[in-house]
Amino acid sequence: MRRIRAVVYGAGSMGSIATRLMTDKGIEIVGAIARNPSKVGRDLGEFAGLGHRLNVPIEADAAHVLATSRPDVVLHATRSFLPEIQEQLALCVRNGANVVTLSEESLYPWYTSPIIAAELHTLAKQHGVTITGGGHQDAFWLGMVSTLMGAAHRIDSVYGKCTCNADDYGADIIQDNHVGETLEQFQKSISSESRPPTFGRNLLGVLAQASGLRPKEWKSEVSPVVADDDRPSQSIGVTFPKGTVVGFSDIDVLHTFEGITFTFEMSGYVYGSGESDVNKWVVRGEPDLYLDNTPVHGRTTTCTQWVNRIPDVINAPAGFVTLDQLPPLRYRPGPFHNYVSVGTLA
Amino acid sequence: MRRIRAVVYGAGSMGSIATRLMTDKGIEIVGAIARNPSKVGRDLGEFAGLGHRLNVPIEADAAHVLATSRPDVVLHATRSFLPEIQEQLALCVRNGANVVTLSEESLYPWYTSPIIAAELHTLAKQHGVTITGGGHQDAFWLGMVSTLMGAAHRIDSVYGKCTCNADDYGADIIQDNHVGETLEQFQKSISSESRPPTFGRNLLGVLAQASGLRPKEWKSEVSPVVADDDRPSQSIGVTFPKGTVVGFSDIDVLHTFEGITFTFEMSGYVYGSGESDVNKWVVRGEPDLYLDNTPVHGRTTTCTQWVNRIPDVINAPAGFVTLDQLPPLRYRPGPFHNYVSVGTLA
Repeated sequence: MRRIRAVVYGAGSMGSIATRLMTDKGIEIVGAIARNPSKVGRDLGEFAGLGHRLNVPIEADAAHVLATSRPDVVLHATRSFLPEIQEQLALCVRNGANVVTLSEESLYPWYTSPIIAAELHTLAKQHGVTITGGGHQDAFWLGMVSTLMGAAHRIDSVYGKCTCNADDYGADIIQDNHVGETLEQFQKSISSESRPPTFGRNLLGVLAQASGLRPKEWKSEVSPVVADDDRPSQSIGVTFPKGTVVGFSDIDVLHTFEGITFTFEMSGYVYGSGESDVNKWVVRGEPDLYLDNTPVHGRTTTCTQWVNRIPDVINAPAGFVTLDQLPPLRYRPGPFHNYVSVGTLA
Repeated sequence: MRRIRAVVYGAGSMGSIATRLMTDKGIEIVGAIARNPSKVGRDLGEFAGLGHRLNVPIEADAAHVLATSRPDVVLHATRSFLPEIQEQLALCVRNGANVVTLSEESLYPWYTSPIIAAELHTLAKQHGVTITGGGHQDAFWLGMVSTLMGAAHRIDSVYGKCTCNADDYGADIIQDNHVGETLEQFQKSISSESRPPTFGRNLLGVLAQASGLRPKEWKSEVSPVVADDDRPSQSIGVTFPKGTVVGFSDIDVLHTFEGITFTFEMSGYVYGSGESDVNKWVVRGEPDLYLDNTPVHGRTTTCTQWVNRIPDVINAPAGFVTLDQLPPLRYRPGPFHNYVSVGTLA
């Protein structure tokens, strides 16, 4: 059986880590895409810090890369929201490639961008490929939490608290997290009508779906995280002075028709010294149940799970297939082409 | 669709809790089995503390109960080891019933009692029913741990530490845990050739299997847990004096051909005041990963997961089907017959 062929769509900090992980797992990287002129033309292996060339140039023309490299799967990481990436995902699909995207909305887009999700679902089915949104959420916000819930006889509420360091995810995410804004700028940003839905809504949507629960009411609240000291950002090379916004907390609440309340508090901000990623969940009911994964290496687990889903996404039925429909995430010791259904890589 | 029909095989402390849980989930309890003359003849509802009769008498003649009540599923909780329960499980199967057993060895019997497991597997296939070993292990030692491992790029070792209160599980388990023995009696017990394999071996077997890892070497070590104060046992109504054995720790180690070392330290003993069940796991590799479910209500989660697997076991293919082969454990809000494949309860 031949190796899996992959394209990195969005050669940034996450794509660099994924490049190394995929190489370790026997995946052949056949293309890399980025818009930034400072990246275009560089070799992906050198860009990713592998210490050797992969003979894969980073190119700006996504259509050309996909048409000529014919990947089995695209690891996509450009923007968070589906309206921003619909055309990018459609381009992958039209070139016959499965896609795993880090776009947070893609985790479960059916309540936030249902029309785009349906269009992509139809297109993916026409082309016999799968689109899945994955990443850190996979084990830590969905898989382990759903399994913990499975130990309950009765659930009254589910509460999750998670933090991530915006500085770990590159300049684009820094912008999405309002880092560096004044409090006034922040309030104006979040009160504007163009503010997209929260990521927590996607997470609570898939968590409910995984247990067959039906959404009744949604509420979202946003509050800024303000630096209480001068806060250096490594990813963009500046220090934000004390008093500026270094990120925000989304607090999403979902009430289901079954009487269960989900609350998810996600804080993404530039950490101060000594902070690490928190992942804690409490299920109230019979019995009360607890899950704590602190400290989580969110930057790494985003990429490991993104890459570890490659065989599942290649094996999955065609369409926009969310993580609740995939097999549970599992460690795989061998080269990933060993885990792909017979005939798929013919 | 009609309700699921269940028999409680082993009306003890676990069976009593399961009786209430099943009643809540719309399961019709059609029979109850126990040997103890003090239980025989009592109504299961009153015995289980429901506060009302179920009109299900506890009977000693298992063959008669199974033949006349024709259950879809038997919730079995008598003894821990497969040689002790083979005939009981076979009796259920010959009467056309699926079985979920709390027998710890049944979690994954293929390395410890492979011949009995194979005989039961063949018998279950002949009769079109499923035997599964479940309970506390399901989410806390297998499901969440396997999913956590799925977030790793590379695993060097997996370490689990779990405690359970022997006092929570009734008189039979107290005996299996050497509670009340002197240190000399304990050493003699564990050095005797008749000592059965440890439960940790079954757990590590299924954990490895769930990730496609192949066992190479096993080691087991046993050490007593000695009371450092007078230790009252509620389940058998005596107080063990300071200095007596109130349980033991099994430390099991599995080295796999893939170079991964699993260590599982399970301590079962009569707790002192203020102790609660611990469930902690550490995966060393890239990255290091952590899971902590403390405090765990092990007595309750044993029963909730035992009962919550009923639809999965009814839906599963015939044979001795271990938890790694079932869908991930999930919370189900409605009556359990709603989750059984169409036609199964015809």
